[in-house]
Amino acid sequence: MIFLGFGFLLTFVRRFGFSGVGFNLLIAAFGIQWAVILDGVLFHFKEGSIMINIPSVLIGAMSTVPALISAGALLGKVNPVQLVWMTLVEVTLFTVNRWIISDLLMIEKHTSLMFVHIFGTYFGLAIAWFFYHPLLGKNMEKERSQPMSDMLSMLGSLFLWMFWPTFNSVLVPGASKRRNAVYNTYYALAVSAVTAFSFSICTNARGKLNMVHVRNAVLAGGVAVGFSAYLIYSAWIAMTIGFLAGMISTLGFTYIQTCLNSAIQIHDTCGVHATFGLPGLLGGVSYILLISIGDWDNITRLGYQALIGVVCLCITLVMSLGGGLLTGFFLTCKLWNAPKHWKYFDDQAYWEFPHLANKL
Amino acid sequence: MIFLGFGFLLTFVRRFGFSGVGFNLLIAAFGIQWAVILDGVLFHFKEGSIMINIPSVLIGAMSTVPALISAGALLGKVNPVQLVWMTLVEVTLFTVNRWIISDLLMIEKHTSLMFVHIFGTYFGLAIAWFFYHPLLGKNMEKERSQPMSDMLSMLGSLFLWMFWPTFNSVLVPGASKRRNAVYNTYYALAVSAVTAFSFSICTNARGKLNMVHVRNAVLAGGVAVGFSAYLIYSAWIAMTIGFLAGMISTLGFTYIQTCLNSAIQIHDTCGVHATFGLPGLLGGVSYILLISIGDWDNITRLGYQALIGVVCLCITLVMSLGGGLLTGFFLTCKLWNAPKHWKYFDDQAYWEFPHLANKL
Amino acid sequence: MIFLGFGFLLTFVRRFGFSGVGFNLLIAAFGIQWAVILDGVLFHFKEGSIMINIPSVLIGAMSTVPALISAGALLGKVNPVQLVWMTLVEVTLFTVNRWIISDLLMIEKHTSLMFVHIFGTYFGLAIAWFFYHPLLGKNMEKERSQPMSDMLSMLGSLFLWMFWPTFNSVLVPGASKRRNAVYNTYYALAVSAVTAFSFSICTNARGKLNMVHVRNAVLAGGVAVGFSAYLIYSAWIAMTIGFLAGMISTLGFTYIQTCLNSAIQIHDTCGVHATFGLPGLLGGVSYILLISIGDWDNITRLGYQALIGVVCLCITLVMSLGGGLLTGFFLTCKLWNAPKHWKYFDDQAYWEFPHLANKL
Repeated sequence: MIFLGFGFLLTFVRRFGFSGVGFNLLIAAFGIQWAVILDGVLFHFKEGSIMINIPSVLIGAMSTVPALISAGALLGKVNPVQLVWMTLVEVTLFTVNRWIISDLLMIEKHTSLMFVHIFGTYFGLAIAWFFYHPLLGKNMEKERSQPMSDMLSMLGSLFLWMFWPTFNSVLVPGASKRRNAVYNTYYALAVSAVTAFSFSICTNARGKLNMVHVRNAVLAGGVAVGFSAYLIYSAWIAMTIGFLAGMISTLGFTYIQTCLNSAIQIHDTCGVHATFGLPGLLGGVSYILLISIGDWDNITRLGYQALIGVVCLCITLVMSLGGGLLTGFFLTCKLWNAPKHWKYFDDQAYWEFPHLANKL
Repeated sequence: MIFLGFGFLLTFVRRFGFSGVGFNLLIAAFGIQWAVILDGVLFHFKEGSIMINIPSVLIGAMSTVPALISAGALLGKVNPVQLVWMTLVEVTLFTVNRWIISDLLMIEKHTSLMFVHIFGTYFGLAIAWFFYHPLLGKNMEKERSQPMSDMLSMLGSLFLWMFWPTFNSVLVPGASKRRNAVYNTYYALAVSAVTAFSFSICTNARGKLNMVHVRNAVLAGGVAVGFSAYLIYSAWIAMTIGFLAGMISTLGFTYIQTCLNSAIQIHDTCGVHATFGLPGLLGGVSYILLISIGDWDNITRLGYQALIGVVCLCITLVMSLGGGLLTGFFLTCKLWNAPKHWKYFDDQAYWEFPHLANKL
Repeated sequence: MIFLGFGFLLTFVRRFGFSGVGFNLLIAAFGIQWAVILDGVLFHFKEGSIMINIPSVLIGAMSTVPALISAGALLGKVNPVQLVWMTLVEVTLFTVNRWIISDLLMIEKHTSLMFVHIFGTYFGLAIAWFFYHPLLGKNMEKERSQPMSDMLSMLGSLFLWMFWPTFNSVLVPGASKRRNAVYNTYYALAVSAVTAFSFSICTNARGKLNMVHVRNAVLAGGVAVGFSAYLIYSAWIAMTIGFLAGMISTLGFTYIQTCLNSAIQIHDTCGVHATFGLPGLLGGVSYILLISIGDWDNITRLGYQALIGVVCLCITLVMSLGGGLLTGFFLTCKLWNAPKHWKYFDDQAYWEFPHLANKL
C-alpha cells in the first residue's frame, strides 16, 4: 500500500490552473518511466537484461521529484515540450548524481535520494535564470491567485504533509529505523507548521497571515528532517530542525525571494527556493553534524564522515547548477517555440476551453 | 488498509456539481449494501445464514462500480429515485453475470470482477438511449464545465489514478502475482497518461490540449490492463496495452462520441464509452490473446481458453445491453416523475440552495 | 501506514475558506505535540523520562479531535490565539478525562478514546455560549456558503467517510476484533448515508435535498458505532445504529439547531451538535446496552457494567461542559483581542490577500 506515496507527486502545484496540474501529471508519468529504465541500467544491469522490481518503481517515483520541483520554479514560463526535455535531462543527471553519491562515496541509498530537494531547486533556479524577463512583474496580474485556487493548493499541501512521513521512511531498511523516521518526520512537520504560522504573523506589517507562507513553510520541516530522520533518537532534535526549517522558509519567502527576483534576475514562480532549497540545505548540514557527532570520540572518522558529507553536498550543488545552466541554454533555442513573455501564466495558450467557446 | 480503495468510488464524477457528488455517494452507499447481501446469497449461502467477511465487503464495493459508471452516462438526465432503482437492477444483474462467468465458466474470481467496466458502460449506454432528446445539444450551456469544477474533476481522476493499482490487484491471490499486477498497472497508467497528452494535441486543430481527454484517457491504461495485469511478465506488454488504451480512448472521445450522439441517438454525459467501454473491450481482447499464447504448444487448450474468453465477453455484452434496455424501458415509466429535458443538468431541481435564498 | 488517519484531521472544516483550513492545521499541529507530551506524562511516566512510541503518536492525534470539533462550533467567531489556548486546555482536560475513565474506571483504552466526539461537542458548545451575539443572524450573509466551497467541504466529508473505519479500529487490540470494527463501521456508514438522503428529502417542504444534511449526517453512523464497533457480531445491529444515527442527525439539524440558536443562545457554526454530539450520545447509550446484554444472565454484573457506562458518560459530559464554561469565561477576557461581532466570519481579519491588493 506504500504506493499511495505516488499521490503526493501529483497534487503538488495547482495554483495556476490546468497547466499546473496537467503538466505535472505529464512530467510525473513520463519521469517515472524514464527513471525506472535508467535505474535499471545503472544499478541493476545484469547479463543484458534489466531487473525491475517494487523498490525500483519507488526509486523511480522519487527520482521524478526533482523534475516536479524544477517545474514549480518554471511554471507558466515554458511549454510542455520544454518541460518534457527538462524532465529527461534532469532525471538522468539526478540518477548519475545518485550513482556517484551512493556507489562511489558509499552513502546509504535512501540518504542519497534525499538530495532530491536540493537538486531539484537549484536545477530549476538555474533554468529560471534564462527565462527571466524584466516585465515579469507586469504579468503579476495573471500570476495572482484566487481564493478558491489557493484552497485547492492548500489541499495539495495537506496531502504532501500527510504523505511526507511515508516519503522519508519508505526506503529506510529495518523496521525500527523506519518507525523512527516516521515519527521524527511527524514531530518536525508539526513544529514546522506552528513555526510557519508564528513567523508569518511576525513578518507581516499588519500582523496578518499569508497563505503562501503557511502553505509552503509547513512542508519545510519534512524536507529538512529527511536526511537524518532515521538516525535521530530524541524528539527534541527533530523538533529543533523543524523549528529552524519553518523559520528559514518563512524568512526566505519574505526577504530572499524579492532579492532573487530583482538582484539576480531569477523569477521563482512557486517559491521553491524557500520551500525546498533552503530547508534542504539545512537538512544536509544537520545530517553532516549528526553523523559527525556519532563519531565524536574518533577524530579521524569524524573528519572523514564530515568530509564525505560536504563533498556530497558540493557535488549535488555543482551538478544541479551546472546541469541547470546547460539545460536552460538548450531550452532557450528557438526550436522549442517557447511562449513569449506576454503569454506567460496563460492557460489558454495550451488548453482548449469549451466553456469559453460560447462567450467569444 | 485496503479499504482506502473505497475512496475512488466517491471522487468519480464531480463535474456537474452537487448532484454529481451527492448522488454518487448515494449510489455507492446503497449499492455496497445490496451487493454484499447478494454476494452472500449467491456465493456464500450455507445452512440458512450468510457469511459476510472482509473479501465480501471488497467484492461488494467493486460490484458497485458498474452502477457508478452507468450513472456517469446518465448524469443530469435522471432523478435520484431512478438512479437507486438502476443501482438495484444493475448490481443484481452484474452479480448474476459474475456468478455465470466464475461458477459456470470457471474463470478466476478476480478476473470475473474486471468485467465491471464493460458491463457498466454498455448498461449505462443502453439506458441513455431512452433518455435521449434531440434538444440535448441546446442544453450544452448548462452542461459546460467551469475551470474550477474541471480542476475538482481532475482531482478525482488523480485519485482514481492513484488507487487503480490497488483496485486491479487487491483480489489477486498470491503475493508475487499481486505485486506483478501492481506494477504492470503502474506502467500501463504512466504510458497511457503520456499517450493521452500526445494524442490530445494531435487531434486538435490548433494543437491545444483538451482537459476532458487528459482527465479520462489517463485512466484508460488502468482499465485495459485490469484483466491481465497479474499474468504479464514483461513490462513492455503492459506498456503496449497502456499505449493502445490511451490512443483509442482519446480517439474515441474525438470521433466516436460525436457519432454516438447524432447517429445512434445516445447522449453519454461523461464520455464513459471512451473512458471505460473501449479500453475495457481492449483489455478483454488482450486478456484472451495472453491466456491463449500461454498455451501456444497445445492447440486444443489454446482454442478452448480463447473460446471461453470470447463467450464471457459476449455474455457480458448481451447481459449489459439487454439489462440496460429493460431497465431503461422500466425507468421511462411516468411513475418516476423523470425530469423534463429542459431541467436536465440543473442542480436546483434536487438541491436546496441556501446561498441563493437571499438573491431571490 | 496507519498514519494516513491523520489526513481526516485536516480536511474537516473548509467551508469558511482560509481561516477554516489554516486554523485547523494550526490546531492539529499544535494539539498533537501537546497531546503526545501529556500522554507520555500521564500514562508512560517511568524513571523521569517519557517513552514515546507509535501508539502514543496515534493517541495524540486522536486526542486532538475534540479540539477540532470544538473549533467547528466556534469557527469564525474567535481568533487563532484563542483557538490555541482552547486547544491547550481542551486536550489537557480530555487526557485527564481519558485517564479517569481508563485507569480508574477500567474501561478499555480504545473505548475511552471514543468519547472524543461527545467531549469535543459539549466543550465547544459551552464556549460558543459566551460568544453568542443576537446579531449573529445578520452575519448570515457572510456565513453563507458558495457552491464551490460546498463541494470542497463535501470532499472533506468523503475523506472522513473513507478514514472512519481506520479511526474506529486502529487501536482495537486483536486482529479479528479489529476486522469486526472495520466492517461494522462500513455498514453503519453506508446505512447512515442512505438514511441521511431520505430524511433530508422528507424534512424539506419542497422535497429537495440539503447539502448540509448530507455532508454531516453521512458521518453520523461512524460516530455512533465508534464505541461498540468491535463487539457487534451481527451486521443488522450496526445497520440499526447507523439508521438511528442518520435519522437523529438529520432531524437534529432541522429542528434542534434552530432551537439552540434562539432559545439557549448558542450559535453552532458547523452544526457539530447534530454531527458529533447527538450520534455520540446515541453511541454511548448503545454501547451501554450492548455490554449489558452481554451479561444478561448475571444480573449483578449487568448492573455493574451499565453503571460504569453511565458514570463514564456523565463524567465526560460534566467535564466537557464545565471545562467549556471555564474556558469560555477565560477566552472572553479583553486580553485576547477577540474579533468584534461585525468581523465574525471574515477571512480578511486574519489573512493577507495578495489578489485583492490591486483591486483596492
